[in-house]
Amino acid sequence: MLEATKQEKLRREGAEEELVQMREKLIDLANAAKAAKIPVIITIDGWAAAGKGSQIAKLIKYMDPRFYNVEPIRIPNELEKRKPWMHRYWMKLPKQGEFLILDGSWFSDNVKSYMHGSIDKDEYKRRIADVNTFERQLHDDGYLIIKLFLHITQKEQKKRLEKLASDEFTRWRVDEHDFVNNKNYDKILKRYEKTLEATNTEAAPWHIIPANDRFTAQYEIMRIVTEAIEGACEAKASGKPYIMPNDFPLTKYTPPKFDMVKTKKLAAINMNKELTEEQYRAKLKKYQSRLFELQNICYQRKIPVVIAYEGWDAGGKGGNIKRVASSLDPRGYEVKPIAAPEPSELARHYLWRFWTRLENDGHFTIFDRTWYGRVMVEPIEGFTPKERADMAYQEMNEFERWLTDWGAVVIKFWINIDKDEQYRRFKERENTPSKQWKITDEDWRNREKWDEYEKAVDRMVKLTSTDFAPWTVVEGNDKKYARIKALKTICDRLEERLGL
Amino acid sequence: MLEATKQEKLRREGAEEELVQMREKLIDLANAAKAAKIPVIITIDGWAAAGKGSQIAKLIKYMDPRFYNVEPIRIPNELEKRKPWMHRYWMKLPKQGEFLILDGSWFSDNVKSYMHGSIDKDEYKRRIADVNTFERQLHDDGYLIIKLFLHITQKEQKKRLEKLASDEFTRWRVDEHDFVNNKNYDKILKRYEKTLEATNTEAAPWHIIPANDRFTAQYEIMRIVTEAIEGACEAKASGKPYIMPNDFPLTKYTPPKFDMVKTKKLAAINMNKELTEEQYRAKLKKYQSRLFELQNICYQRKIPVVIAYEGWDAGGKGGNIKRVASSLDPRGYEVKPIAAPEPSELARHYLWRFWTRLENDGHFTIFDRTWYGRVMVEPIEGFTPKERADMAYQEMNEFERWLTDWGAVVIKFWINIDKDEQYRRFKERENTPSKQWKITDEDWRNREKWDEYEKAVDRMVKLTSTDFAPWTVVEGNDKKYARIKALKTICDRLEERLGL
Repeated sequence: MLEATKQEKLRREGAEEELVQMREKLIDLANAAKAAKIPVIITIDGWAAAGKGSQIAKLIKYMDPRFYNVEPIRIPNELEKRKPWMHRYWMKLPKQGEFLILDGSWFSDNVKSYMHGSIDKDEYKRRIADVNTFERQLHDDGYLIIKLFLHITQKEQKKRLEKLASDEFTRWRVDEHDFVNNKNYDKILKRYEKTLEATNTEAAPWHIIPANDRFTAQYEIMRIVTEAIEGACEAKASGKPYIMPNDFPLTKYTPPKFDMVKTKKLAAINMNKELTEEQYRAKLKKYQSRLFELQNICYQRKIPVVIAYEGWDAGGKGGNIKRVASSLDPRGYEVKPIAAPEPSELARHYLWRFWTRLENDGHFTIFDRTWYGRVMVEPIEGFTPKERADMAYQEMNEFERWLTDWGAVVIKFWINIDKDEQYRRFKERENTPSKQWKITDEDWRNREKWDEYEKAVDRMVKLTSTDFAPWTVVEGNDKKYARIKALKTICDRLEERLGL
Repeated sequence: MLEATKQEKLRREGAEEELVQMREKLIDLANAAKAAKIPVIITIDGWAAAGKGSQIAKLIKYMDPRFYNVEPIRIPNELEKRKPWMHRYWMKLPKQGEFLILDGSWFSDNVKSYMHGSIDKDEYKRRIADVNTFERQLHDDGYLIIKLFLHITQKEQKKRLEKLASDEFTRWRVDEHDFVNNKNYDKILKRYEKTLEATNTEAAPWHIIPANDRFTAQYEIMRIVTEAIEGACEAKASGKPYIMPNDFPLTKYTPPKFDMVKTKKLAAINMNKELTEEQYRAKLKKYQSRLFELQNICYQRKIPVVIAYEGWDAGGKGGNIKRVASSLDPRGYEVKPIAAPEPSELARHYLWRFWTRLENDGHFTIFDRTWYGRVMVEPIEGFTPKERADMAYQEMNEFERWLTDWGAVVIKFWINIDKDEQYRRFKERENTPSKQWKITDEDWRNREKWDEYEKAVDRMVKLTSTDFAPWTVVEGNDKKYARIKALKTICDRLEERLGL
């Protein structure tokens, strides 16, 4: 595909005038994207010395700098290395109506890591799959992703490198490696082609920009960007997803399939589980000390632990989390209470606010309510259309798979109580002055929708109990039993992961 | 003061029961602080092996983990080094009603950096002043700061270090340095004392915790913490600031005074400044290229540049910023548009959202609207009481001083137009379909308060034109003139800073 790209120079007559018109149009289109709330990501990859930086500068020259952000993608820094490899891209996601322009991207991040030998072939392939899934997730959420690859020939690259090296002001930009790579052009070309092909999907197809001639490159970039934004705005206005035309055959992409574990419906759970005070004290002590030891090993081995708590109102999540937290070295965990999203969170992919809350490897991140609000409160209360929410089962499995691939142990609890027990606890809260703040009209309203929620929970547990991140339903009528079950589950899962 | 601290053991009889009561009380007090929206910071400093970690664990054991966050303070990481030294503390500020518990703090950060020789005496002293000012700012904003210093004797420290070193599970926690420091105990003691004395202010006095005996330490910490939270809640309920009792004499602290430059009132500005199209083109080219060169030098010398834009509605800020931005390498700047604060921002000190938006050193951060909203829109629209807003002149000068101390060039523009010109531009916006989104009823309402705003601007320019971060009022009736003046001002300021 790169061989096929003719490095033909565009005839300047006419094209210069067109370029001026496209620039003016881009100003209007950027406003239109803002009005239509379309978030736009433009990635610029390509050969060394292909002119990525100067092409970006030309692209944005006529855009409003309040609404774009240009980010160079380099070797991950110290903190980025302690997160999943795609974490840094999630962190940078633009808001609806804003532009993120990447100099380099997950494409070059992956392919360069592989060529430099810092990841092996399996990891390289896994990352290709990650990229396709990531782009599909964003596309499904209305993101417009425009991927540009600046292509220059071996001869042109050599010429440019020599020119850069000969000027004292630009010499620092090239080193020995660049010249070695230029000698190995054909080999790198093959790797680039394979990677481009493998990531040329409907959600985010590639555009190869002939860049031997700078004017031609600039024209082509402007043409593709303006066409894409225009197309996306038109599609959105007519309520359809935007499908970008592809320049070369799309790769066959199927979303990952996961192995599921067998689960039970809530109604089939035996809720008559309890512990005596004596049993509780003994087990609490045992599992809390064990957990503290296990945390220490996780810390030393840099294993991240992600614990997700969901459950009925008044189910006892708070007290349960407290028993887990108080086992741990406080410097090694953080509890993240999840409330209604803020405006800046609503303006991005719904998983963004969970990605941004992940602690470093070796640490525990404990979520008090989670991303699963997407398939419970959001569709039930009408914040998210049911069809959109239904897509989340797959997306959340993918998210948790990414966490697992990062090395995380992902533990998910549904704290279950029955309807009578909830009533008892609501009443108790109402009648206890120090607990009244914990009970609101909303709790009573939610309770009226018990059956609807129960159906949603059954479905969620069934569809998101992957073998790497299964749900544990915790029988919660007896708080003591529930706390011990959660602690024991965490200890068991960690021991399994640590091979103890 | 540390000599004077008797390492007396508390009699356990009675005290154990009291401790249990205080723990229960802490649960209620944490809820009360949440209800009263008081943000709480507890810093735990002290000698190596004084038991900071285990005391923190005991303190939080009975608290709700959703509402506290424990952060260890270590040597700054790669990214923290590229920000002002106190940036990382600002980043971690708790929300109203939440607890931040620091293992180590700005105290040990400063004193250890000095003792290790990574900063000199002048810097150490400057940081003491920074700390006092920082704490005063937080205190003035309703933060409760509880500072604890865990004190042990030389003999006790030696015993503990030896014990840690002799156990294979804890050996990694001590090294040669700790034993050397133990030998130099008296010298370190003196430095600690001087630093404690110098930072013992009304806003945040120190509490020395005798920690040879762990029970005594635990009791004392719990006593001080519960008393302080109770006192702060009571003070808030009665509408007064909380003044914590001090254990030893307070240091004399006066807020920093700054040298101001002479300024003019807006009414005294000659607004008849303009450029021909030809002059504009020539100067634009000249200053844009110059700015690009200067940015390169700033990048290489890691000099941060902070540019703040304020001005009348329809003053031409957007177009002005665009001309500055388009001069720059897009990878080296970011424009931060400032809108109304989000809930998580309103729940913290108002400067927090500006601290968190600072780019790394070597980069430009361009604010489109700024922290000066505090003394303009906020008091005028009644979002902030006038008396509180009046405190901001000093606070903002201090903020900008911190930026300057970090090495930043701070450039502030007020883009000025006269009332007739604004009317013309509003009308033009109304009559131009592509510009209608830029004009709202709010703009017209603000215009009615022109005189009030003008007074506020005059006051702001007068009170915050320090010699290190003066305002530049830009005559903006002619957009071309305004753009060139801003560009030239930036170039001049950078040249001055770079000694060119």
